Amino acid sequence: MAETADGMAGYEARHFALEMRGSIALVTLNRPEKKNPLTFESYAELRDYFRALRDAEDVEGVVIQGAGGNFCSGGDVFEIIEPLTKRDMKGLLTFTRMTGDLVLAIRNCRQPVIAAVDGICAGAGAMIALASDMRLGTPDARTAFLFTRVGLAGCDMGACALLPRVIGQGRASELLFSGRAMTAEEGERWGFFNRLTEKDAVAEEALALATRLAEGPNFAHMMTKTMLNREWDMSLEGAIEAEAQAQAICMQTADFTRAFEAFAAKRKPVFEGD
Amino acid sequence: MAETADGMAGYEARHFALEMRGSIALVTLNRPEKKNPLTFESYAELRDYFRALRDAEDVEGVVIQGAGGNFCSGGDVFEIIEPLTKRDMKGLLTFTRMTGDLVLAIRNCRQPVIAAVDGICAGAGAMIALASDMRLGTPDARTAFLFTRVGLAGCDMGACALLPRVIGQGRASELLFSGRAMTAEEGERWGFFNRLTEKDAVAEEALALATRLAEGPNFAHMMTKTMLNREWDMSLEGAIEAEAQAQAICMQTADFTRAFEAFAAKRKPVFEGD
Amino acid sequence: MAETADGMAGYEARHFALEMRGSIALVTLNRPEKKNPLTFESYAELRDYFRALRDAEDVEGVVIQGAGGNFCSGGDVFEIIEPLTKRDMKGLLTFTRMTGDLVLAIRNCRQPVIAAVDGICAGAGAMIALASDMRLGTPDARTAFLFTRVGLAGCDMGACALLPRVIGQGRASELLFSGRAMTAEEGERWGFFNRLTEKDAVAEEALALATRLAEGPNFAHMMTKTMLNREWDMSLEGAIEAEAQAQAICMQTADFTRAFEAFAAKRKPVFEGD
Repeated sequence: MAETADGMAGYEARHFALEMRGSIALVTLNRPEKKNPLTFESYAELRDYFRALRDAEDVEGVVIQGAGGNFCSGGDVFEIIEPLTKRDMKGLLTFTRMTGDLVLAIRNCRQPVIAAVDGICAGAGAMIALASDMRLGTPDARTAFLFTRVGLAGCDMGACALLPRVIGQGRASELLFSGRAMTAEEGERWGFFNRLTEKDAVAEEALALATRLAEGPNFAHMMTKTMLNREWDMSLEGAIEAEAQAQAICMQTADFTRAFEAFAAKRKPVFEGD
Repeated sequence: MAETADGMAGYEARHFALEMRGSIALVTLNRPEKKNPLTFESYAELRDYFRALRDAEDVEGVVIQGAGGNFCSGGDVFEIIEPLTKRDMKGLLTFTRMTGDLVLAIRNCRQPVIAAVDGICAGAGAMIALASDMRLGTPDARTAFLFTRVGLAGCDMGACALLPRVIGQGRASELLFSGRAMTAEEGERWGFFNRLTEKDAVAEEALALATRLAEGPNFAHMMTKTMLNREWDMSLEGAIEAEAQAQAICMQTADFTRAFEAFAAKRKPVFEGD
Repeated sequence: MAETADGMAGYEARHFALEMRGSIALVTLNRPEKKNPLTFESYAELRDYFRALRDAEDVEGVVIQGAGGNFCSGGDVFEIIEPLTKRDMKGLLTFTRMTGDLVLAIRNCRQPVIAAVDGICAGAGAMIALASDMRLGTPDARTAFLFTRVGLAGCDMGACALLPRVIGQGRASELLFSGRAMTAEEGERWGFFNRLTEKDAVAEEALALATRLAEGPNFAHMMTKTMLNREWDMSLEGAIEAEAQAQAICMQTADFTRAFEAFAAKRKPVFEGD
């Protein structure tokens, strides 16, 4: 990464398009002629970018979209799948760990990440959407965990852990075994999409949501995201103690005091993330 | 607690209203002029009350409601939030552990707990509803995990562990990051509410459900509740062995024999909870 | 089991009906005059059958149905419940472990298992459907985890672990505490059923789905199923590393190469499961 650890707003991306909208980073997968497939280079750069966001103070949210009416068609067949068919086990594990590390980096950055999904959202593209904190879709969104169509298992980049927690184990099983596309309407009914928007409005609505969140207590949002990740495999008792500690930390932020003072003065609070 | 460990039907509550309807305790949060906020005292008394219910033989179910058309507005701004802004870390952790302990006490008491939710159901109030085993709502129920609105994180009282298990990780993320209200209709579609009732009927329907359950095998209900809590972080194999043991215990109850004998005699079984 | 470990297509079942439809085993619970209840013998044979399927190379999928318009009424009252009321703890645990082992065997066999559910689907029958990977239902399907009706707990055969992961914790709590029947429409809305079919078509549609999956990469399907089971109690990081390893293994299968070659040649891939 070219930027220092605490500043990523000026980062110039090479393998995807990147634009700041206020404090929100708009990541655009941008090879629209091929429905925005991923390559070894774009995987690696996205992983490094989201890793760097963890400590970046100048980015307060992320929206991911695809260019040209599709989100992402997944790993490119000739640029990724063909070379993989020739790799040895060490080389294969290097690849599967890199793609998994992209999901981890999206989950572990401190910013809320919102996927704006239109058109094709397939394979690794579906996993990028699934790894995001929230998802907005359009009526044309078609989301397919189609690993099985290329002879692979549904357990790719964390799909068997993440998808059942979002849409339930039965629906996840069908999508992962069959590789069939989930329609936009199914995605909304099942909780994959938080809501559907007009086709041309999805990125702007995602940006508006990210901006509203960024006007909130960003330190506390980081803690919410951290705990949503960490409590998967905690006992009830463990989770409750973990939240008691996490929220006590947040109660020492200035944002908490600001909220009370604004309420007492009948003002809208202005949060600063500290 | 004023009562002995095995008798709570006669308990006289100080910071909430309490009434026995048969063997069902009807807990009413009752400061309707402020939409039933919680105070340090009502938090602590509710925690102690639910802890004592664990061993109480004379209470077979609990319904929680709010007075005056609202469920609960959460922690009172001047009685709770203002003092918290002045506490040191030790004092803050004492508070967050107390509120988490209320959730634990609701989850760990042996009785099924049903929340009857009308109107505002916010913050710690939303957590009390979420910690309940089942939830009935009215069309006016508005449920908001609004911790973020006071500068805090969504991880409060176990929300990041409980809410994804009830409505899914994607929907939970949106509610916890944004603090926005979930409508009654969303709550029913998403599995937060078991069903919606007429506005004036919700407490009576919750009491009717609790009463029907109380006519069932209460020892077995306790085991169901125990295992619903304990199997969160068990492996598949661990969960199945744990249920084999738990159900074998229940098969030595007289209620199991009573059920068979009633079936053989073509009678309705009368369960006694032993 | 009469068959060798790697061949089960010719197995002759004694306590259920078994028919091969291509490479798909169609298991029919067939005591229609009593709505297909289970007995000690059919439990044990089903457990042994699914255990043997784990290594069977000649069966590529399983569909389970009931004869005569009902799926399964659960454990027979006079053949199972009455004898259980007379057993000591050791004998009871032997039974509850056997029934749990049936669920484990269904989850741990390598083939996708699809339940085709019409009519009554109750008790252990509901658990067999729940243990399956996918479920198709008819409008007449009535699914009840009715253990509570015979004086027992809802924690039977893994229900408290499996059902919340499929339909959510709140809905699961109501069904397990009350024992009430879930309608077909509820089952579809809540994610228990993958879809509803015409009443007379459910077995054929389940067979068609199983056949389509069997034409896919069966080694990879086995890995998908394995990971859907194993990642319940993994951390996010643990799950992602586990999938990196599992998918790297699948990338060394010939099916993966076949898929690429077919794509490059604009052919439909023919998978062979190796």
